Amino acid sequence: MKLAVIGVGLIGGSFALALRKAKAVSHVVGVGRGEQNLKLARERGIIDAIERDPAAAAKNADLVLVATPVAQFASVFASLKNGNALITDGGSTKRDVIAAARKALGSGIARFVPAHPIAGAEKSGAAAASADLFQNRRVVLTPLKENSPEAIGKVTSAWKACGARLSEMPADEHDAVLAAVSHLPHLLAFALVHEVAGRKNSEQLFSFAAGGFRDFTRIASSHPEMWRDICAANKDRLLEELSRFSGKLDQVKALLDKPADLEKLFAEAREARDRWIRSS
Amino acid sequence: MKLAVIGVGLIGGSFALALRKAKAVSHVVGVGRGEQNLKLARERGIIDAIERDPAAAAKNADLVLVATPVAQFASVFASLKNGNALITDGGSTKRDVIAAARKALGSGIARFVPAHPIAGAEKSGAAAASADLFQNRRVVLTPLKENSPEAIGKVTSAWKACGARLSEMPADEHDAVLAAVSHLPHLLAFALVHEVAGRKNSEQLFSFAAGGFRDFTRIASSHPEMWRDICAANKDRLLEELSRFSGKLDQVKALLDKPADLEKLFAEAREARDRWIRSS
Repeated sequence: MKLAVIGVGLIGGSFALALRKAKAVSHVVGVGRGEQNLKLARERGIIDAIERDPAAAAKNADLVLVATPVAQFASVFASLKNGNALITDGGSTKRDVIAAARKALGSGIARFVPAHPIAGAEKSGAAAASADLFQNRRVVLTPLKENSPEAIGKVTSAWKACGARLSEMPADEHDAVLAAVSHLPHLLAFALVHEVAGRKNSEQLFSFAAGGFRDFTRIASSHPEMWRDICAANKDRLLEELSRFSGKLDQVKALLDKPADLEKLFAEAREARDRWIRSS
Repeated sequence: MKLAVIGVGLIGGSFALALRKAKAVSHVVGVGRGEQNLKLARERGIIDAIERDPAAAAKNADLVLVATPVAQFASVFASLKNGNALITDGGSTKRDVIAAARKALGSGIARFVPAHPIAGAEKSGAAAASADLFQNRRVVLTPLKENSPEAIGKVTSAWKACGARLSEMPADEHDAVLAAVSHLPHLLAFALVHEVAGRKNSEQLFSFAAGGFRDFTRIASSHPEMWRDICAANKDRLLEELSRFSGKLDQVKALLDKPADLEKLFAEAREARDRWIRSS
């Protein structure tokens, strides 16, 4: 299989490395904006060749992975309009990606099988790519009614070859689920760090922050551009989650006067989390 | 040195183990509510003897560590009223602990040098205690005007023997700092997990939660009773932090319509966090 990776970052680079490791790919072409990142990707054996333009990269490819920040998807899909290669992506949001693909690919939309590998990390770029990133991680496909079973099957196989656990759901369900368990926590972590960093005594505050703060805010070291795009793309769902969360904070605030009820809420949260950790 | 530990949990148990490892203590008496936990503490070599009552445990001790949940401090201090042993504590809040100590110890207050070891973990009990828990961790002393330099010196030495980095600040400053970088994040983590756990589709939501969610919510596996007490004790500061954080969330919400500004906020947060991580 010949692969083209548009955006050779953490996701794109790891996809190429994982397929190489599984011996599922014979040749990889990489496209990207950063010269140095592409050179590093070639040095690391992630890609064999560099192309400037997605269309040229896709020309002889069997499969194209689009893994740029989501805001660039529209122009990438436009470049891929005239081709035959199967396309999948690594976008963290799906409704906007599908809309962009429909607009750009037109009747070629059947070639695109949308995917979201749930395997982020606060690191980014080809330097952070790893053949094992998707090992035992979930990849959600949100297939289109135009996709043939063969197309879905081939994309499924590629992600499975990366070691991922596959599932399928409609795009709007995907975006709602991820808003709750990924996008909102990222927003909260960014907000908390920004709040602390903006204080007069921020240096003192950080110096007394410990392991709890470090883990809570780990995702605030995530890629700002990527998260800007996710927030813009999933704004409606995110606003819903923000509003639910504000409601929960009001509930917690009210319980500061009812210690027994507050303890009950804490205990329920701990139990739910521990149950999840045990089962995952 | 003879030590009495009131509350042989993560903090109390680790204090005893660390002082043993440093050969700074010859005999440790433990007091606690849980029969099984105390037996385990004796089996693990954390304590040499078990006493029912803090007064009895403190009778022959040179130093007493009070490390129960903060809500029990008042009654523990009352038991320690008639004695000569130096007292320190492991409470996460300081204004309320000092007020309780003043009330109970009266003119004996000079014997109490308040301390907060910033070394939590989501695990609790003697089973989780470790001789290395305080290694390179901060311990904040909030000395009282009644404390003699000798008393402060002795308590400082004990915590230093545990491997901790010592600092001093007034109790109200301590409570304000910790509200921002510890108490608020805990509340947010408990709230988020409780929110997700209460949804109809909570099972689905948890099943698509990944590493970011796991780290963000790690502190929601903390001890519910301990956190109930911290929230009650530091309620005014916590309400201030909640209100500031709500303001920051409103700012972020407004920026969902201004992608460039949102990205700037994310980038500033990432930079501040990365700077902190590098320096710590």
